[in-house]
Amino acid sequence: MKNHQQSKAALSRDDIFQRATTLAAQFAQTAVERDQLGGTPKAERDALRQSGLLTLIIPTEHGGLGANWQDTLAIVRQFARVDSSVAHVFAFQHLLLATVRLFGQPAQWQPWFESTVRERWFWGNALNPLDTRTVAVADAQGYQFHGSKSFCSGALDSDMLVVSAVQPHSDKLLIAALPTRREGITLYHDWDNIGQRQTDSGGADFNQVRVASHEALLEPGPLSTPFSTLRPLIAQLILTIIYLGIAEGALAEAKRYSLTQRRRWPTSLASSANQDPYTLLHYGEFWAGLEGARLLAERAAAELDSAWALGEQLDAARRGQLAISVAAAKVTAARVGLDLTSRMFDVTGARATTAALRLDRFWRNLRVHSLHDPVDYKLQELGNWALNDSYPQPSFYA
Amino acid sequence: MKNHQQSKAALSRDDIFQRATTLAAQFAQTAVERDQLGGTPKAERDALRQSGLLTLIIPTEHGGLGANWQDTLAIVRQFARVDSSVAHVFAFQHLLLATVRLFGQPAQWQPWFESTVRERWFWGNALNPLDTRTVAVADAQGYQFHGSKSFCSGALDSDMLVVSAVQPHSDKLLIAALPTRREGITLYHDWDNIGQRQTDSGGADFNQVRVASHEALLEPGPLSTPFSTLRPLIAQLILTIIYLGIAEGALAEAKRYSLTQRRRWPTSLASSANQDPYTLLHYGEFWAGLEGARLLAERAAAELDSAWALGEQLDAARRGQLAISVAAAKVTAARVGLDLTSRMFDVTGARATTAALRLDRFWRNLRVHSLHDPVDYKLQELGNWALNDSYPQPSFYA
Amino acid sequence: MKNHQQSKAALSRDDIFQRATTLAAQFAQTAVERDQLGGTPKAERDALRQSGLLTLIIPTEHGGLGANWQDTLAIVRQFARVDSSVAHVFAFQHLLLATVRLFGQPAQWQPWFESTVRERWFWGNALNPLDTRTVAVADAQGYQFHGSKSFCSGALDSDMLVVSAVQPHSDKLLIAALPTRREGITLYHDWDNIGQRQTDSGGADFNQVRVASHEALLEPGPLSTPFSTLRPLIAQLILTIIYLGIAEGALAEAKRYSLTQRRRWPTSLASSANQDPYTLLHYGEFWAGLEGARLLAERAAAELDSAWALGEQLDAARRGQLAISVAAAKVTAARVGLDLTSRMFDVTGARATTAALRLDRFWRNLRVHSLHDPVDYKLQELGNWALNDSYPQPSFYA
Amino acid sequence: MKNHQQSKAALSRDDIFQRATTLAAQFAQTAVERDQLGGTPKAERDALRQSGLLTLIIPTEHGGLGANWQDTLAIVRQFARVDSSVAHVFAFQHLLLATVRLFGQPAQWQPWFESTVRERWFWGNALNPLDTRTVAVADAQGYQFHGSKSFCSGALDSDMLVVSAVQPHSDKLLIAALPTRREGITLYHDWDNIGQRQTDSGGADFNQVRVASHEALLEPGPLSTPFSTLRPLIAQLILTIIYLGIAEGALAEAKRYSLTQRRRWPTSLASSANQDPYTLLHYGEFWAGLEGARLLAERAAAELDSAWALGEQLDAARRGQLAISVAAAKVTAARVGLDLTSRMFDVTGARATTAALRLDRFWRNLRVHSLHDPVDYKLQELGNWALNDSYPQPSFYA
Repeated sequence: MKNHQQSKAALSRDDIFQRATTLAAQFAQTAVERDQLGGTPKAERDALRQSGLLTLIIPTEHGGLGANWQDTLAIVRQFARVDSSVAHVFAFQHLLLATVRLFGQPAQWQPWFESTVRERWFWGNALNPLDTRTVAVADAQGYQFHGSKSFCSGALDSDMLVVSAVQPHSDKLLIAALPTRREGITLYHDWDNIGQRQTDSGGADFNQVRVASHEALLEPGPLSTPFSTLRPLIAQLILTIIYLGIAEGALAEAKRYSLTQRRRWPTSLASSANQDPYTLLHYGEFWAGLEGARLLAERAAAELDSAWALGEQLDAARRGQLAISVAAAKVTAARVGLDLTSRMFDVTGARATTAALRLDRFWRNLRVHSLHDPVDYKLQELGNWALNDSYPQPSFYA
Repeated sequence: MKNHQQSKAALSRDDIFQRATTLAAQFAQTAVERDQLGGTPKAERDALRQSGLLTLIIPTEHGGLGANWQDTLAIVRQFARVDSSVAHVFAFQHLLLATVRLFGQPAQWQPWFESTVRERWFWGNALNPLDTRTVAVADAQGYQFHGSKSFCSGALDSDMLVVSAVQPHSDKLLIAALPTRREGITLYHDWDNIGQRQTDSGGADFNQVRVASHEALLEPGPLSTPFSTLRPLIAQLILTIIYLGIAEGALAEAKRYSLTQRRRWPTSLASSANQDPYTLLHYGEFWAGLEGARLLAERAAAELDSAWALGEQLDAARRGQLAISVAAAKVTAARVGLDLTSRMFDVTGARATTAALRLDRFWRNLRVHSLHDPVDYKLQELGNWALNDSYPQPSFYA
Repeated sequence: MKNHQQSKAALSRDDIFQRATTLAAQFAQTAVERDQLGGTPKAERDALRQSGLLTLIIPTEHGGLGANWQDTLAIVRQFARVDSSVAHVFAFQHLLLATVRLFGQPAQWQPWFESTVRERWFWGNALNPLDTRTVAVADAQGYQFHGSKSFCSGALDSDMLVVSAVQPHSDKLLIAALPTRREGITLYHDWDNIGQRQTDSGGADFNQVRVASHEALLEPGPLSTPFSTLRPLIAQLILTIIYLGIAEGALAEAKRYSLTQRRRWPTSLASSANQDPYTLLHYGEFWAGLEGARLLAERAAAELDSAWALGEQLDAARRGQLAISVAAAKVTAARVGLDLTSRMFDVTGARATTAALRLDRFWRNLRVHSLHDPVDYKLQELGNWALNDSYPQPSFYA
Repeated sequence: MKNHQQSKAALSRDDIFQRATTLAAQFAQTAVERDQLGGTPKAERDALRQSGLLTLIIPTEHGGLGANWQDTLAIVRQFARVDSSVAHVFAFQHLLLATVRLFGQPAQWQPWFESTVRERWFWGNALNPLDTRTVAVADAQGYQFHGSKSFCSGALDSDMLVVSAVQPHSDKLLIAALPTRREGITLYHDWDNIGQRQTDSGGADFNQVRVASHEALLEPGPLSTPFSTLRPLIAQLILTIIYLGIAEGALAEAKRYSLTQRRRWPTSLASSANQDPYTLLHYGEFWAGLEGARLLAERAAAELDSAWALGEQLDAARRGQLAISVAAAKVTAARVGLDLTSRMFDVTGARATTAALRLDRFWRNLRVHSLHDPVDYKLQELGNWALNDSYPQPSFYA
């Protein structure tokens, strides 16, 4: 273990990005095929485990790579360009680590962080707060969780789960971290969706699952302080980054196809397809849109790092400002991305619709992912800021 | 035969639409499953053969149902709402009948029409004029066709084919109608696309295929008179109608899902999901967009019937006006449809992305089909009319 | 007078349109100048009085021209192409005639109709139901109206006014028709707006104005039956028609300028400005958009004529269907028109912004007029129809 | 003078922005009135002269304020929020100083810079390269300029002019700086436009105007090196910044109006107008759009400062990258701004169209200014970069 930690500590920023680049290239080779297959990207998940990149956000003093959010999200985006399913579960690893960090006590998250490094844990999600079917009944040793949960991204093949349950009397949400292998947990291979097909965002059943008190994230608990309310903002920014990565990946594929396969339209004034005025207009709009989305996302990531560094010193105003930055980035990335991934075919032409290329996966992935929570209500929050100077009310979606 | 023709002659307009409705309901039941499978919709093609609807556009004096284009296209649209692949090959049946009617002599098309009624022929397409790999070499008995052809929609399981080939010396297109079983013709089961998955729009090989003189459509030949240039306008209007049908089908599915499954967003001011202000805004935009597209398409169909009735009396100006009506309908239907089939998920929410529903098929089908020829150049034609009072130059795409 | 009526009765549909065309040409000559001046278009109003066109919608048996709504609105649109202020007050003449027809008794509207023919009355509007400052106090002879009213389009220089007032106890709206010269009425020359500058849509004061019982429109009264609720639909359709006319006028001016003044951009692939690919793209989008709006507006007008002909036989469903047709036409015309009147400069270039041309008046007029009631809520009504099969709840705006 | 320069040297960045803020507040008070009047904003121009801000971009060693481009443009933007005409001529002061700096020799621009500080020169523009009517004939003492020139922004009331003329034999552009009072120069008060009404962008006549050799910018001359080709990029970025400022000003006015005057629509689900879901949606879209435009413009300004600092070390690639950043910012600011300045009325309502507020000036100003050169061709440049990795070919517009 010691050697392991040392080697990690010795990993430079360049090394980290080099590893990510290597992995992304590896993911790219099978992304088309795996989009068709769906299911668990076991090989890719194990490659992530081996790479050490699952510890990116864990501070070096706990054995992690000690990356900041900007670098972590840059790597998420790199993965998302070629495989947004893997990018999603990889990003959620860090969201879940942040969750235990923000909602729990050092005595809780420090050992978990260290075990994550040591055991190469992959964390899975069973937190969906809109699904209130799982209840938490307190007893002498802690709690029993019982019920079902949907949209459990990355729960299959995970080592640890973050689970939420409703407390019957208070209707308050209880969140706990527990080993995926805990007795009574059943995870279903039932995620078969039009997009994000390898995120395993299926269902789970909790049958009288024991949760010890020290596994419950009670102090400070969910969304209790400005700092702890960073959690939904990290989640929203991860979504944003993935939208952006998908759109960038789509542009790269469209470009490759246009340059090598596209034929000049007979009545075009241009002498070659890649100088066609309308093709250039589309690409110009793609570029301008993406650039705006990129800058918004990068600014939000930088602000997140500042907010994260403040810890419990973070105040509501600064949190609110970050929420607005994230929201602006998110709606922009979603809209730009949906437009680009649909319109990309106008610059490639009919032959690019062959299933062999599965170029529709960009739109399918983005379309599915951008429904996590409604863009309309994110715009409403931005409007409430622009008009009424009101920051979003912190919640699991804002 | 006599009885058969009589029964057809006796088929009222109501009966025709009743048959279409029955068939559409039948197609709907398996559309999701068949979208996944791809391949040839053999059962559906045979049901169409049995229904007699393959003779819709054939005049009653030749034993057909004698429908006009408006009714024929209304039925195409009805099919497209539930299954745009079947709608496509069904519509192309009528396009190909129109092709032999417009490009050939009565001595050619009349027997073909009558055989179509008698033998329940399904016509297939191998005409793609942008693919110039097939050549026609003249010889004593007529021609030999040799080479390959892509995008041969509905050629598999067809009885007759309309084929184009380039004449080496003149570079002129020669079009012929011949039995699909003619020696030397190989049709490939190689259509595997992201959308329109059961149109069998794959490749064909012509290996020294004999084409008799009387099978060649030489007089008046392709695009030779205003009347004969109706052919591309029928093709473009068929595309339009299918886009419209797809969009209407998507709206119907979205509505069904919204009404039964959609949950109210926690911060919505409305008391139920189906009164959510943003949901209603989306539906309102869908409706307004669709209504415009519907009226444009219906006007174009009515104008087509008038132009068709004029026959060789049709002049360039009236043909030009129809071309503009078709173009306006087409770009509108394409844009409205692409928007609706992508945005429909904003009114259904994340759970509607389950692969069991395959609601993405509407976008995939429309996305593929709307690439037949570029919307940008169709807009250019409209602009040339709006600014310069110039009608589109007739071609296989205008 | 008798001769006059006879000559009117003898006025053919062609004659009517010829008169309208002559007037439109006359209005066009000074429209730019009058847009700058604002104020009352006295000469144009008197020309309308002289033309007899103020009686378009009055049945021939009452001495009017007996036009239907389709023709009446076609003339409104013709005027709106060159002068949307005059078009507005001209259209409101007919809306106000419809108002007394729909809300009052034959014993009321028949004499008013006949006086309108005989005296060449121009009717003005003081009905704005959102402005509740004017109250109606009942007394022995009828009512006293007291208070202020805003947005009184065409009240200045009018002969008759339709006025609304709130009844203090019931909060119900009382509507009456009375001579503009009635003692106690003060109309202000205070309309100075960014658009629709010659509609005189300013303020009015009612100082203890006597309203006789027979001047009050009590039976059936406002919005009491499906037929009487046609009134807001006529108002909404008039707005629609004016948006459409403005957009058509803008396109005509843009085209004239492009063809005569526009210079080729140095890096354009086209050899002349009017073949520039982007210019053609804009014009193509203008055309497609306008065509959709035109068809929607024309369908709504035809449906209005059918509904109007039904009279009190009109049922709620048919009224609801008309409301949806009008709403679809209205949001489409507003959006297409705002886009066109702003984007028209992209096809004319910088030099077309000279104040001498005042080409911005199209956008200004449409921008002002399209705020009559919110497009967003019109879309909401359409959404409520598309999703919930609910017709709009009749009101003064739906 | 000495004291003056010392006080300038002592002017801190905070002082500079304080002066700008004071001036902006002053401009705001009369902006509505002056938009109506048009003509020369003499008082405002003199206030700028007095403020010393006309020397912002002049290095301190030459007596200027020594600001960088980011700060200079921040002040342009501040002015543009309240008065985009004044912002325009103020910005062009710096563009013209940059022009002599980039196209001329130190022996030319250094004295001009110092005189600008000492004499409080305001520079005017007579460079429009698309207007080739002015010719430069070489003679013994230098040149004679003869002909006309359009779009001479800020030439009236200027002290120095930058003028371009075509050299008859070579067709090359000759650019010179000369005193506005030079004999033979006539400037016309003929700028009467729908927007940017106080920019005096009218016509000029040059009647045998003497231009000395040392006034001609021959070495390095226009667009001769990557560094000298910064000139069009500065021009394009100034346009961008002004679009952005206009849009920000429009949002501020809309907000003020919405908060104080807007009434709740009767069927709104919200209890107050400023919580109306559709109003918030519009504001949310405004905000997201503006934020993207802001970040793009700010990045471009930062890159301009880097490029400017490199001087003749600047290479084509870095210049190209800046060109792309500027282009992305420009098309985004133009589109976001046009949308916002038109749609702002949807959040204020009909009463905000009163001419007293002249809220249409934002759209009029932006509409006029965004026609400087076509947005379509700027998008084409971006497309050529996105698809073909080609930087824009430097020209006076790229």
